[in-house]
Amino acid sequence: MDKPREECGLFGIYNCDGLDVAEETYLALYALQHRGQESAGIAVNDNGVIAFHKDSGLLPEVFDEKTLNDLGGGQIAVGHVRYAPSDKQERANAQPLVMRYVKGTLAICHNGALTNYGEIKKELEQGGSIFQTNCDAEVIAYVIAKERLYTGSIEKAVQNAMKKIKGAYSLVMMSPRKLIGVRDPNGFRPLSIGRLGNSYVLASETCALDSLGAQFVRDVRPGEVVVIDEEGIHSNTEQCQENTSLCIFEYVYFSRPDSVVEGVSVHIARQRAGMTLAKEHPVEADMVCGVPDSGLDAALGYALESGIPYGTALIKNKYIGRTFIQETQKKRERAVMIKLNALSAAVQGKRIVLIDDSIVRGTTCRHIVQMLRDAGAKEVHLRISSPPFLYPCYFGTDISSKNNLIANRLTLDGICQSIGADSLGYLSVEGIRGIAKEAKVGFCDACFTGNYPIEVPKGPQEDKFSQKIVPHKG
Amino acid sequence: MDKPREECGLFGIYNCDGLDVAEETYLALYALQHRGQESAGIAVNDNGVIAFHKDSGLLPEVFDEKTLNDLGGGQIAVGHVRYAPSDKQERANAQPLVMRYVKGTLAICHNGALTNYGEIKKELEQGGSIFQTNCDAEVIAYVIAKERLYTGSIEKAVQNAMKKIKGAYSLVMMSPRKLIGVRDPNGFRPLSIGRLGNSYVLASETCALDSLGAQFVRDVRPGEVVVIDEEGIHSNTEQCQENTSLCIFEYVYFSRPDSVVEGVSVHIARQRAGMTLAKEHPVEADMVCGVPDSGLDAALGYALESGIPYGTALIKNKYIGRTFIQETQKKRERAVMIKLNALSAAVQGKRIVLIDDSIVRGTTCRHIVQMLRDAGAKEVHLRISSPPFLYPCYFGTDISSKNNLIANRLTLDGICQSIGADSLGYLSVEGIRGIAKEAKVGFCDACFTGNYPIEVPKGPQEDKFSQKIVPHKG
Amino acid sequence: MDKPREECGLFGIYNCDGLDVAEETYLALYALQHRGQESAGIAVNDNGVIAFHKDSGLLPEVFDEKTLNDLGGGQIAVGHVRYAPSDKQERANAQPLVMRYVKGTLAICHNGALTNYGEIKKELEQGGSIFQTNCDAEVIAYVIAKERLYTGSIEKAVQNAMKKIKGAYSLVMMSPRKLIGVRDPNGFRPLSIGRLGNSYVLASETCALDSLGAQFVRDVRPGEVVVIDEEGIHSNTEQCQENTSLCIFEYVYFSRPDSVVEGVSVHIARQRAGMTLAKEHPVEADMVCGVPDSGLDAALGYALESGIPYGTALIKNKYIGRTFIQETQKKRERAVMIKLNALSAAVQGKRIVLIDDSIVRGTTCRHIVQMLRDAGAKEVHLRISSPPFLYPCYFGTDISSKNNLIANRLTLDGICQSIGADSLGYLSVEGIRGIAKEAKVGFCDACFTGNYPIEVPKGPQEDKFSQKIVPHKG
Amino acid sequence: MDKPREECGLFGIYNCDGLDVAEETYLALYALQHRGQESAGIAVNDNGVIAFHKDSGLLPEVFDEKTLNDLGGGQIAVGHVRYAPSDKQERANAQPLVMRYVKGTLAICHNGALTNYGEIKKELEQGGSIFQTNCDAEVIAYVIAKERLYTGSIEKAVQNAMKKIKGAYSLVMMSPRKLIGVRDPNGFRPLSIGRLGNSYVLASETCALDSLGAQFVRDVRPGEVVVIDEEGIHSNTEQCQENTSLCIFEYVYFSRPDSVVEGVSVHIARQRAGMTLAKEHPVEADMVCGVPDSGLDAALGYALESGIPYGTALIKNKYIGRTFIQETQKKRERAVMIKLNALSAAVQGKRIVLIDDSIVRGTTCRHIVQMLRDAGAKEVHLRISSPPFLYPCYFGTDISSKNNLIANRLTLDGICQSIGADSLGYLSVEGIRGIAKEAKVGFCDACFTGNYPIEVPKGPQEDKFSQKIVPHKG
Repeated sequence: MDKPREECGLFGIYNCDGLDVAEETYLALYALQHRGQESAGIAVNDNGVIAFHKDSGLLPEVFDEKTLNDLGGGQIAVGHVRYAPSDKQERANAQPLVMRYVKGTLAICHNGALTNYGEIKKELEQGGSIFQTNCDAEVIAYVIAKERLYTGSIEKAVQNAMKKIKGAYSLVMMSPRKLIGVRDPNGFRPLSIGRLGNSYVLASETCALDSLGAQFVRDVRPGEVVVIDEEGIHSNTEQCQENTSLCIFEYVYFSRPDSVVEGVSVHIARQRAGMTLAKEHPVEADMVCGVPDSGLDAALGYALESGIPYGTALIKNKYIGRTFIQETQKKRERAVMIKLNALSAAVQGKRIVLIDDSIVRGTTCRHIVQMLRDAGAKEVHLRISSPPFLYPCYFGTDISSKNNLIANRLTLDGICQSIGADSLGYLSVEGIRGIAKEAKVGFCDACFTGNYPIEVPKGPQEDKFSQKIVPHKG
Repeated sequence: MDKPREECGLFGIYNCDGLDVAEETYLALYALQHRGQESAGIAVNDNGVIAFHKDSGLLPEVFDEKTLNDLGGGQIAVGHVRYAPSDKQERANAQPLVMRYVKGTLAICHNGALTNYGEIKKELEQGGSIFQTNCDAEVIAYVIAKERLYTGSIEKAVQNAMKKIKGAYSLVMMSPRKLIGVRDPNGFRPLSIGRLGNSYVLASETCALDSLGAQFVRDVRPGEVVVIDEEGIHSNTEQCQENTSLCIFEYVYFSRPDSVVEGVSVHIARQRAGMTLAKEHPVEADMVCGVPDSGLDAALGYALESGIPYGTALIKNKYIGRTFIQETQKKRERAVMIKLNALSAAVQGKRIVLIDDSIVRGTTCRHIVQMLRDAGAKEVHLRISSPPFLYPCYFGTDISSKNNLIANRLTLDGICQSIGADSLGYLSVEGIRGIAKEAKVGFCDACFTGNYPIEVPKGPQEDKFSQKIVPHKG
Repeated sequence: MDKPREECGLFGIYNCDGLDVAEETYLALYALQHRGQESAGIAVNDNGVIAFHKDSGLLPEVFDEKTLNDLGGGQIAVGHVRYAPSDKQERANAQPLVMRYVKGTLAICHNGALTNYGEIKKELEQGGSIFQTNCDAEVIAYVIAKERLYTGSIEKAVQNAMKKIKGAYSLVMMSPRKLIGVRDPNGFRPLSIGRLGNSYVLASETCALDSLGAQFVRDVRPGEVVVIDEEGIHSNTEQCQENTSLCIFEYVYFSRPDSVVEGVSVHIARQRAGMTLAKEHPVEADMVCGVPDSGLDAALGYALESGIPYGTALIKNKYIGRTFIQETQKKRERAVMIKLNALSAAVQGKRIVLIDDSIVRGTTCRHIVQMLRDAGAKEVHLRISSPPFLYPCYFGTDISSKNNLIANRLTLDGICQSIGADSLGYLSVEGIRGIAKEAKVGFCDACFTGNYPIEVPKGPQEDKFSQKIVPHKG
Repeated sequence: MDKPREECGLFGIYNCDGLDVAEETYLALYALQHRGQESAGIAVNDNGVIAFHKDSGLLPEVFDEKTLNDLGGGQIAVGHVRYAPSDKQERANAQPLVMRYVKGTLAICHNGALTNYGEIKKELEQGGSIFQTNCDAEVIAYVIAKERLYTGSIEKAVQNAMKKIKGAYSLVMMSPRKLIGVRDPNGFRPLSIGRLGNSYVLASETCALDSLGAQFVRDVRPGEVVVIDEEGIHSNTEQCQENTSLCIFEYVYFSRPDSVVEGVSVHIARQRAGMTLAKEHPVEADMVCGVPDSGLDAALGYALESGIPYGTALIKNKYIGRTFIQETQKKRERAVMIKLNALSAAVQGKRIVLIDDSIVRGTTCRHIVQMLRDAGAKEVHLRISSPPFLYPCYFGTDISSKNNLIANRLTLDGICQSIGADSLGYLSVEGIRGIAKEAKVGFCDACFTGNYPIEVPKGPQEDKFSQKIVPHKG
């Protein structure tokens, strides 16, 4: 549906209570499924022997009762859901990456994107290394493996590796006897620590903790290495730094509204975005509505601030999953019609403020506006709860190519006209900076401003092999 | 999730425009999937030769691109989605029922429940008939086949059959050259006529028309037989009667909010229910919230009427499908936690009015109330946008057995206490009668009042064979 | 591979030893899989409640551990494997046919073909009956259901039904408390009784008894109704008659060589056919070889009688199953190459006598002869261990249409030339009559002679609906 | 069925005729399926971009029409079928191994076993390498990648790598523009070159060439590196050596009888083994029979030499595939009964010479002998067409652990008694050496003699992670 896409959801558990770690990981990944729908995987560590299963597909496509049971019990487990950049559903790239190196086994789950991936890879290749995937995780695995040769412990090797790898990386890793959580020094991607009885868990978002009934302990700090073993939780903060830059889009779209990121509720942040939007772009209207589900929270905020009644203008078919019609359907309009329907009785004759979180190419937006007009809306005022996308992301968000971004091609008026709205307003950069002001970290807003918090690569690296796989059923 | 369940969604198309009738039917059934998730089927009629495919499972589990293409093209098609009463997922009972009789082939899709099913079946068996399913559709097929022996046309045979079969039945049928739509004289279940170019369609709900871009023509009248053939649309209203009784629960829960049933928007009816509820059971509170998705529309109405701000208290995981955890999970509480999460930041310290459409057993409700309290809600006032269920339905709604109905076991105070709410209010029977007052038909509210509009059977008929099938993946 | 095809394999068990009847039936059907590869089904009767599962596909495609376990335990079970005539893989036609009628439930498995199917069906339709399949079993079910109305027991009803249905039918049926085996008065298709501890079993062939470790008791007599219940085994022979006509092709091709049909070993009968063939069509040669697997037994006989050494000329790929290449591959030659390969080292420079059981269209034969020549064979003398097919079968064998039969289009010389053999000899009609001379029944050899033992219908009945289903994987 | 197991089948094609390389590879792997049933994979190279698909399962389980088509067209393709040692069906280990290194991509298919796998792996790990599989192919990939750093071409790098890796390895590899075939200097495993029009193919066995209609060119020489590119075929024989040692068991059991290995027909070699066996262990008897399919060829030879008639004593169910009954069935006897049945009519009262190719644990053998006695055989004389297994294989054959080998536990008499045969005779070591005497290579017979042609490792290497996957259906 023409949205930016996040790359991954991570989970890890260190079991001190006789829990079924595979099932806990499965349930936690369910809560994180919105962070990645292309592949899923779980690895279970039973006294140093790792059993794992991963494949492309949604979690319930990858795991059934038998597959999950076959993983067996264990003391530690890690899990991953993944959004595959570009259109390739690559089974070879599914995570966790499970590997054996000089000190035994290591399972790695990664969320983010390295900015020096190509550089390190080239250097490794020139040392004779081979690559079987297109994942950052494989490069990270190599760097850790090499560092481990000269260091006395896995945590020290990880810290050393952090000096080499640049960019965005939240990691959940499992060595034979330890569960390890890492956030890059900028803290681009979130990672939280929770407690379930005597057991510890790590998860990309707090909603996964809630789904297990785990208590939130704290966020992993940007630059911190957290190690959980039989003696409890250890922390190393050597790589922590002053300047941090959490992806602001985690609040706008990626995270689930019931998650709390760096101390700020995502739902509240979105509501605030809507409130600020109402201040910045007021309009006379009869009803404020959100595009389901991405615009609903901000719409509540806009309504609250503006005093215009909140209502429902669009109904989403909750059964739409991976239907092949979406693929074969050439007419994008029809794809939108399958998914959304306008509520004539509610919009008939009304002036509507329609809220969404972002516009990428603008095509879906155009169909929705038309749908509302066909349903009898008198006016449609589009309000976007984030600034226009203008710059590519190098930290793990896939926003489509620069040329496809409507804001790069058209002026504000041009976009409004192209979409067919009566008026259009984007939240300002200032505005968005204020939606999570209590957070204990700084933000990255480079996609709006071009102010990249760290050095970024020059061009994309192209890959030379692909694994084409059969589409999943269900 | 402890809800009453409707039995079916119907669709039919008579093609005058070279449409791909299988694809149109597939898309329409997608829009009707909420009416039945246990099985799906499509039958395509190409010059009298019927190709069909049906199986247990959700639509995209039953049909993939190949299966749909294999149905080929045709002039007429019918489709069905089904909720299987009781826990049996019976592939043998999937519809359309395709049969051959003295005058050729007939495909039948049924929504509702016959009240004299057992009686007719017994009579047919005593005439030597055999039964291969547990469906009303099979009994209806027999009655039509027998009537057809003494009548000159299929429509006349259908009219005669309507004199024999009692109860709730909306039918979409396909004879070699005709598409036929029928509603029982009481009009228990909805059925609408639409137009797509020069082609006609029949659908249980108007949302299916919208999803195809078809224009709504009118509802089939209670008691009417509509026949569509190459000469256009024909109507016979001999069985139409004064007293009609559309299931009021179509407005409360079954139909999609974007559907219009008998001239009344379902969304508006639900909002009204919420408004009346606010008048009948006011309370001082800080926020009005709905249980997603069933209570959201009524919550909007309650907020509107009461002036208490509308907000979001619960987030639903939109990826929860057929996960086996739901089956294996003994602790119901956990199943609720996977599906819903409370929004602490929004409910913390607040007095919440929580709206849902109905309570069946009360177990889910109890977990939700607890979840809100755990999230910091100061008070939770439960408001239900329909009266208490007290009586069984014989017309195609599966409300669970009478003994399981909490309202039959406990007083209002008892229910409130059992659920753990601070207060509890149900919409009155009067109240619910008013939610769709512009409708051109009467209503059945027997589940609340026991006033059955027609005679009902004495006891349940038990079946003697079952088809046990493999649970579907995904 | 261009062979005539049998329609079905039957099995039934009456459990007196706490056996897992579903598993026993599964194993028995495995031994009967050669009798039908298009669909499979098992029905289990637990105190009158029947659970069943059936689908298109090979046995291990239709049943996995879960499906089989889901059938549960029971006192009686019946199973069926089916070859679908024509190219339609119709799931709707899979058996057992499980039905409910005035006296409870009945599960029916049928092998054969009724000659008055169309007639009875028409009559039933004119009485208002409806048909949901294209199976003889459904017609048989109706006739039994109607007879049951006027008779005091199921066995009596079956006997009366036998007076109405004409043609070939072996039946294994299951009523709430009885297992019933029937053979038509001519005994076209085989059916045997076995004993497994205190339990009784019925099976199309004795190889199924062997696979369970069951003891052979006796064949069901042509015209006999065998009823097995808690009091043991009962027999009614009212419909038995003087003239019987077992399909001679059961010995030539259909039955497994390790089965014993009417007292004669199928392997021995085939060996004898080869011996007689050697007498009737001797030739000077260096090696006698069979086309695997259909010609191997007769080749042994030919070698034995002629004194020419038996050898191997063709190797069959034992992993060839349902590969889609067979479907998409237009060049039949390639399909043969995937399946068979000539053994150059064995045939180089040799004069080969090549034995097969029959020629239908001759295409495969031609490719095989060419393959042997390419491998260096000096001469290839084709010998067929049955007479030429000249007449259609109305009793359950699908030999391809009359026009496709090469023996109807060409003279012996013409066939030989078309196939490219150096000489060609068919077993004589006399010869084939002698291969099972100890059998206690007469034979039907109408496909060779046109002497139909009973009246046959005039033309084929065309069906008006088809169920097109997704091809199976694996 | 208690047999030694080979590890792999290889295929490669360099396309000069516009062939569909994916389909040709699929067909060739079909012909090689007997060499590995646990996983299958194909990689297609289209101008340097490699598309691949691999998974655990039989070829038609891994590939369907869509998966194969999705691989697209290309100039080069390689394919692999694999037998997984031990019981783990490891998807992670499926081949081809597709990897990227400093000079682009490389796809590797391996058959054999390295004797210094553990050694090299340890060395690589100490240099910081990581391992994602348990395959020799991964180690080989690393060694080649490292050699490539200091050499000007892939073929030179391969030659250098051959100096480091020890043991048995036939390789089929694909670089961006070359197809490469390699055999280790001992030539433990076979590899042949064929020509299909202007295109070249490489295959483990000639039966794969036959199935494509390709002409046999020659075997790759032990120690030879064959490179096929747009200029044709190139050969480097620097690593060729005097002493070669083809696995003699390729003739006895592994290869298909219609293959020609090093100039000797496998079928003829087996027949000869039977003839020598007849000379070494004559016996008075009425019929010579083979255990299907492994003993049939040798039985023909025994019959030929002894003058005792060849016959059939055991029938094999040709539909037995991956049935779960085999897994769940605890009683081995029953598993044998499902697969094999004795032909009473043929063995009744006879003295049988029963031929098989080998005995591993002896359990299956015991059941078969008993089965023949139950069927009425008067005497059963077991003759084995190879010497007793006494020593483990380090070159890619999985014979079960030393302790399980019956010949290590019992004397000849003890084995005979344990199996219940009337007499027992094994082919002598001398005898087996003579079965392929025209071959242009020497043989490895270490499993019989303990004379390992090269140094072998001390103990087994244990792996630390496993991928447990769902058993495949069908």
